[in-house]
Amino acid sequence: MQWYFVAALLTILTSSQGILTKLSQNKDSTYDYDTATVPFLGEIFKLFVSCFFLWREKVASPTPLKLTMEWRSMRLFLIPSVIYLFHNNISFLTLKYLSPSTYQIMGNLKIITTGVLFRIFLKRKLTKLQWIAILLLTIGTTTSQVKGCGDSMCESLLSGNITGYILAIVSAFLSAFGGVYTEYLLKKNNDSLYWQNIQLYTCGVFINMGWLIVGDFQSGFEKGFWWQRLFHGYTLTAWLVVANLASSGLLVSWLMKYADNIVKVYATSMAMLLTAVLSQFLFDVKATIQLLLGIIICMISLHLYFTPVHMLVDLPEIETPVKREEDP
Amino acid sequence: MQWYFVAALLTILTSSQGILTKLSQNKDSTYDYDTATVPFLGEIFKLFVSCFFLWREKVASPTPLKLTMEWRSMRLFLIPSVIYLFHNNISFLTLKYLSPSTYQIMGNLKIITTGVLFRIFLKRKLTKLQWIAILLLTIGTTTSQVKGCGDSMCESLLSGNITGYILAIVSAFLSAFGGVYTEYLLKKNNDSLYWQNIQLYTCGVFINMGWLIVGDFQSGFEKGFWWQRLFHGYTLTAWLVVANLASSGLLVSWLMKYADNIVKVYATSMAMLLTAVLSQFLFDVKATIQLLLGIIICMISLHLYFTPVHMLVDLPEIETPVKREEDP
Repeated sequence: MQWYFVAALLTILTSSQGILTKLSQNKDSTYDYDTATVPFLGEIFKLFVSCFFLWREKVASPTPLKLTMEWRSMRLFLIPSVIYLFHNNISFLTLKYLSPSTYQIMGNLKIITTGVLFRIFLKRKLTKLQWIAILLLTIGTTTSQVKGCGDSMCESLLSGNITGYILAIVSAFLSAFGGVYTEYLLKKNNDSLYWQNIQLYTCGVFINMGWLIVGDFQSGFEKGFWWQRLFHGYTLTAWLVVANLASSGLLVSWLMKYADNIVKVYATSMAMLLTAVLSQFLFDVKATIQLLLGIIICMISLHLYFTPVHMLVDLPEIETPVKREEDP
Repeated sequence: MQWYFVAALLTILTSSQGILTKLSQNKDSTYDYDTATVPFLGEIFKLFVSCFFLWREKVASPTPLKLTMEWRSMRLFLIPSVIYLFHNNISFLTLKYLSPSTYQIMGNLKIITTGVLFRIFLKRKLTKLQWIAILLLTIGTTTSQVKGCGDSMCESLLSGNITGYILAIVSAFLSAFGGVYTEYLLKKNNDSLYWQNIQLYTCGVFINMGWLIVGDFQSGFEKGFWWQRLFHGYTLTAWLVVANLASSGLLVSWLMKYADNIVKVYATSMAMLLTAVLSQFLFDVKATIQLLLGIIICMISLHLYFTPVHMLVDLPEIETPVKREEDP
């Protein structure tokens, strides 16, 4: 399977996520099901799918599969889950200091932090042109989100709290670190992807369960125990939300192993723009000139990052000089 | 003199123009002098300066200067003035169909049309990367100008009249054609730049004079004859406006001869951003996130256009293969 096909599929699924979630709402924008249980069910779903695929792979393979079973290696799979746990908590905290729109705009920083950590931890070298492309992607997604201001009231630059900005930066680094560390784990040996996924999602199931239990304690068991809410109020659309979340998770994992974090970042950024475009048809949201500008900028970024340089500047394709042995 | 020094100077003068004009206003945003006379006085100023420099060049030169005096060549210098005349009229007309902010945003199209006509008429080849840079410059200046919208009232995309958009596109082509034709005229022979300027500005003086006369007839000579208003109400700042306009005109002419239209477009686009930044300190205008994004995009564009490609992608510098004649 080609990575760009998977990336395109991820773009479509990710952009469906917001739309499906919105469609699963009641008319008064409330939910009949507990949205906090969605990630937990998603992890369960991914775990089952990975188990099934591993079994199929085992049956089809003539030689025994390579499955690293050492605890020393397996325990590392806890790290991404723990990082995401920290990341979620810090995000909640950040929202106390920044307005939702500033929070959303600061979220684009994770594109740059992913590039930085990708370079530092995975030692992958990017050309200057690719760095420019990554910067442009950040600018493009930000541009598409700018609410701007009428002639009078105008949200000024850097109007938020400094603590909020610092938390947003920490959050961007944590998010990038989670991604980069997952890529490191999946690529560090030749284990079957499904076996690696099983380890990843088992940790995910437990971390999400812990999260639900903490929620129960915080609310003083007002809504009963978390497992009582697991299947309560789930409509077909709500189940589609779970299935969609889980499927995109599986695609991300595939991309991390066979492509890289930057490809994933492009796919999810494009998904954000696609959602904005689709929203205009589905939810009667008006198209803004910012969205159009943002889309053009992101397309340019995509082009600069992935096009071979000799196609950008009409250079002859660089050939390795061949030493002609038969010459004296 | 290096072209980038002249371009930087042009950026500063162009961005001063808007600020000086604003400073020359009364407190109630009216003018004591007739702003319609400014371009005419500017042409006179440039004509005198060019005459002076030509005389100095003639005195200093040991051999007679090359001055093409044929009418067949001289009459071509009328063309840029006529183009600008059409351009101005169409701009007035466009403003009847489009809102001022849409008009301003459509004005950025002249960056792209300049690139296109530069390619077609002057046969200058640009790399794909340079085309991307030109597109980015257009996007960047547009981004910085987007007023955007609050949560409620929102200027929708393409809300204007289709006639207005067509006129704006025609206007963008005329503006570009004026620039490209001037570059063609100045580069077509080795005449002294000052002699070429004299021909250019003589036409400019007459065209502007005609424009003032037409204005007098249209207003029914309410404000008297145009020459009566020429020096009326001119303060020191108003004279600075004229001197600044004329000086930037002279620099543009220099750039057209010794650099090209694209350099000029970069200088004036950067000037627009510089004006926006300076306005925040001088006139208490709030900084917007759009301005910041626009500046970053334009800087990236500048970098992509002018940086040699081997510095962008770590290629070895391309050497012309040397044919070794002494080999068998």
